[in-house]
Amino acid sequence: MPSSDQKPKARLPRGLIDRSPAEIRATERMMTRIRRVYERYGFEPGETPLIEYSDALGKFLPDQDRPNEGVFSFLDDDEQWLSLRYDLTAPLARYVAENYERLPKPYRSYRSGWVFRNEKPGPGRFRQFMQFDADTVGSSSPAADAEICMMAADTLEEIGIPRGQYVIKVNSRKVLDGVMEAIGVTDDRQKLTVLRAIDKLDRLGIEGVRQLLGPGRKDESGDFTKGAGLDQRGITIVENFLFVSDMSHYAPMSQSSRLIEGDELLDDGGWAYSSENTIAALSAVLDTTRAGEAALFEIDELFRIASAARYGSRRIRFDTSVVRGLEYYTGPVFEAELTFEVKDDAGRPVRFGSVGGGGRYDGLVGRFTDQNIPAVGFSIGVSRLQAALTALGKNADADATGPVVVLVLDRDRIGDYQKMVSDLRRADVPAELYLGESGMRAQMKYADRRNAPLAIIQGGDEKKRGKVQIKDLALGKKLSAGIEDNAQWREERPGQEEVDEANLVERVNAMLGRGERRP
Amino acid sequence: MPSSDQKPKARLPRGLIDRSPAEIRATERMMTRIRRVYERYGFEPGETPLIEYSDALGKFLPDQDRPNEGVFSFLDDDEQWLSLRYDLTAPLARYVAENYERLPKPYRSYRSGWVFRNEKPGPGRFRQFMQFDADTVGSSSPAADAEICMMAADTLEEIGIPRGQYVIKVNSRKVLDGVMEAIGVTDDRQKLTVLRAIDKLDRLGIEGVRQLLGPGRKDESGDFTKGAGLDQRGITIVENFLFVSDMSHYAPMSQSSRLIEGDELLDDGGWAYSSENTIAALSAVLDTTRAGEAALFEIDELFRIASAARYGSRRIRFDTSVVRGLEYYTGPVFEAELTFEVKDDAGRPVRFGSVGGGGRYDGLVGRFTDQNIPAVGFSIGVSRLQAALTALGKNADADATGPVVVLVLDRDRIGDYQKMVSDLRRADVPAELYLGESGMRAQMKYADRRNAPLAIIQGGDEKKRGKVQIKDLALGKKLSAGIEDNAQWREERPGQEEVDEANLVERVNAMLGRGERRP
Repeated sequence: MPSSDQKPKARLPRGLIDRSPAEIRATERMMTRIRRVYERYGFEPGETPLIEYSDALGKFLPDQDRPNEGVFSFLDDDEQWLSLRYDLTAPLARYVAENYERLPKPYRSYRSGWVFRNEKPGPGRFRQFMQFDADTVGSSSPAADAEICMMAADTLEEIGIPRGQYVIKVNSRKVLDGVMEAIGVTDDRQKLTVLRAIDKLDRLGIEGVRQLLGPGRKDESGDFTKGAGLDQRGITIVENFLFVSDMSHYAPMSQSSRLIEGDELLDDGGWAYSSENTIAALSAVLDTTRAGEAALFEIDELFRIASAARYGSRRIRFDTSVVRGLEYYTGPVFEAELTFEVKDDAGRPVRFGSVGGGGRYDGLVGRFTDQNIPAVGFSIGVSRLQAALTALGKNADADATGPVVVLVLDRDRIGDYQKMVSDLRRADVPAELYLGESGMRAQMKYADRRNAPLAIIQGGDEKKRGKVQIKDLALGKKLSAGIEDNAQWREERPGQEEVDEANLVERVNAMLGRGERRP
Repeated sequence: MPSSDQKPKARLPRGLIDRSPAEIRATERMMTRIRRVYERYGFEPGETPLIEYSDALGKFLPDQDRPNEGVFSFLDDDEQWLSLRYDLTAPLARYVAENYERLPKPYRSYRSGWVFRNEKPGPGRFRQFMQFDADTVGSSSPAADAEICMMAADTLEEIGIPRGQYVIKVNSRKVLDGVMEAIGVTDDRQKLTVLRAIDKLDRLGIEGVRQLLGPGRKDESGDFTKGAGLDQRGITIVENFLFVSDMSHYAPMSQSSRLIEGDELLDDGGWAYSSENTIAALSAVLDTTRAGEAALFEIDELFRIASAARYGSRRIRFDTSVVRGLEYYTGPVFEAELTFEVKDDAGRPVRFGSVGGGGRYDGLVGRFTDQNIPAVGFSIGVSRLQAALTALGKNADADATGPVVVLVLDRDRIGDYQKMVSDLRRADVPAELYLGESGMRAQMKYADRRNAPLAIIQGGDEKKRGKVQIKDLALGKKLSAGIEDNAQWREERPGQEEVDEANLVERVNAMLGRGERRP
């Protein structure tokens, strides 16, 4: 055996974490609920491996100018490059291109799994994280876009985010193209700089965006970010464009020109903000460029369909500041934002923010095939959404009660104790035998630590009389509080009762408040 | 856009697969059941990331003499080597070493997840596969070993493998050490060759093992495998050792010297094979070497505890041919074998074979720390076990019924159709809107392909009358069989009924044979 200083250190690489039982269970519960919604929408499960050919994944990460940046890659023994997937969309595109003939068309599917980013980790930013995606491939209909948005809204409500505390924000890459046309930007790098500036509205406010659209911006640390170099006219057009979806200048629902019919009016209403008045305003801003007009028609259709299904602007809303970093989007883009406030690291109140997003990516499957295969999807950041539920106090662990612990008082009779444990398990009562080497006091401490509801105790004396002690640990703690001295404690044995060996399982079930078996 | 020949090919690297909805759902169901058993045994969930420092994982794969063989590795940007985990045990050892102070002791936990082997793939041999492990860390008690074996047996029964169609085979590395002592083998490489020969008993039979223990063996293809070079006395000792657990020379239970008490006698019995007569036979074979005797005492305790909990030799059985490839085992080793027959590729009947295994690995956590931390665990090969359920016909997909499909007859009224879909979903009826561009006939074909139970149809005529058609697709197919011509079909509309728009959800629920809502 190597000496101590030669031993490897037990530690994890940066940006990777172990998860606790409570977190694992909470995620499992949340994902079961998400699946339930997706199944209700007729989506079927899909699954691809975590490793793909690097060229099949392509490079669509935001802000990645250099090759291989952001992705974990390794050379296979046949000299081909493999990569760990960085999202679930690129593998889906590969899967669809490979199997299109035998898939139902359109193909609605969902998938969850780990994705990897070879990036600098930070607070809440990991190199391995879980996504939960849903996609509709093979339909270019705005109804498919609308459905994805409605499903995202339903999902957030199903897992426990109350209506009004979230919003599905919708924009369109084509509308953004219309803005580019209106401001006369044609260079791809300049376009990207404009989009990044727009994307920062939430974080920097309109003044910061103005600087980033113009010559550039110096942040608090003195770092300078070069701007897009727009002239004053261009900056004003973008600014007006962003202003269109600023909620503050819309009237409450009662004055709306276009009420949303049906029983969700009161529930879902609140703002007169509708596709019609948005689109009217945008028409003016974009000065009816060709690209802009087609885009507006398409996005109007999305909201019209959502409205018909009674999803109003309180749930699904046009927001011109939504950009989404990924390169492959071609039409509508979505962002699920949680609007309730939490405290940031410095204790200041901030909106919880984005927990997922997506959009239409009509060109992605076409990377592999000459067929034109349109697609739209949505991706949830699972741990981010989990954190939101925790912030809302909705992550209480229903399984927090531990197993019944059977103590080992007489090591020669371990078979007897094991039989009690087995009998309990057979009746579907979670139970365990104490497996350590320690005495009674340490065993009771262990039972406490395991959050055991009951401890089972049988010493030689009880064994002789065919009896066994059942100790209710929670009740015992409560009762002990009122007991004065050790002698009284021994006399009364608070929360403890003696039963016949033969009645152990029945009595345990009764004390746990459950029937003989779970239904 | 690049021309067609520049496009990447949509394909997967060797040894990696996509999974179908039916497979995904079947695995999900199976894993839920496995979790249920583990929770009943008081095990709590654990999770570590898929990437670890290479030195933390170590190299414990069987038959891996060269470094880095078998593992996917890549250099991190701080020049440290990272690897994808190749099993769930090495990461658990790292986790325990890192967190031992704050874990309950002993620490019972379970975990499932993908593991990776950078090996040549073959039929049923993948480079990414799923394992489901359970481990007890911090107890050296044979009760911990026995518990793992009983839990493995319960797990197989819970997922649907009938008693008698599986067996948990138990051996001990220490007993094998006793054999080495008895045959005078001390060289590590020679030991390994002997173990590999023993491991091949199932596949090659005793004659093949004899050759591999001696000078060597030439297989059908003419390839020669060098043997362990034992003399005749050594070969005879190993042969007698293997013979001890050969079932064919044990009497049926009724003649047993040690009956297993309790209500499982008839159910679990069948063989007189017990720890006592096995150990008596082994004592003779091993000629009471020191290592052998201590090992026999320990393994006797394991069976004694299992028997007390009424797990007899039909479920948990000593088998001297079990070796287990992994280097880190130090005590008892287990293998879960399914004993029913399936056809091999050539159509010959073969035992289904191993679906999992494990053992005691007392030194593994000690790689990181000077503390002595004993551990025992068991690992299920998930896809292998899934294949077993399929072979037993127990994988029928309960979710095979697809969603209700709402057809789109009038594209201008897509909002109306969307509302019907939303109403159905709100009542928890899985439903979808047809999102393609095709006509009525293609839409009906799509509904069929989606395995839809019902199709909802509303043309302009029905709309005017406030009606909607519900078509029962299965019933329709059945009834259509008896219909002669098109005119009669149009007249009778088999399996189709017209209802008021307002009653759509209620009627759909009734036709699906369900209440207004799921419980």
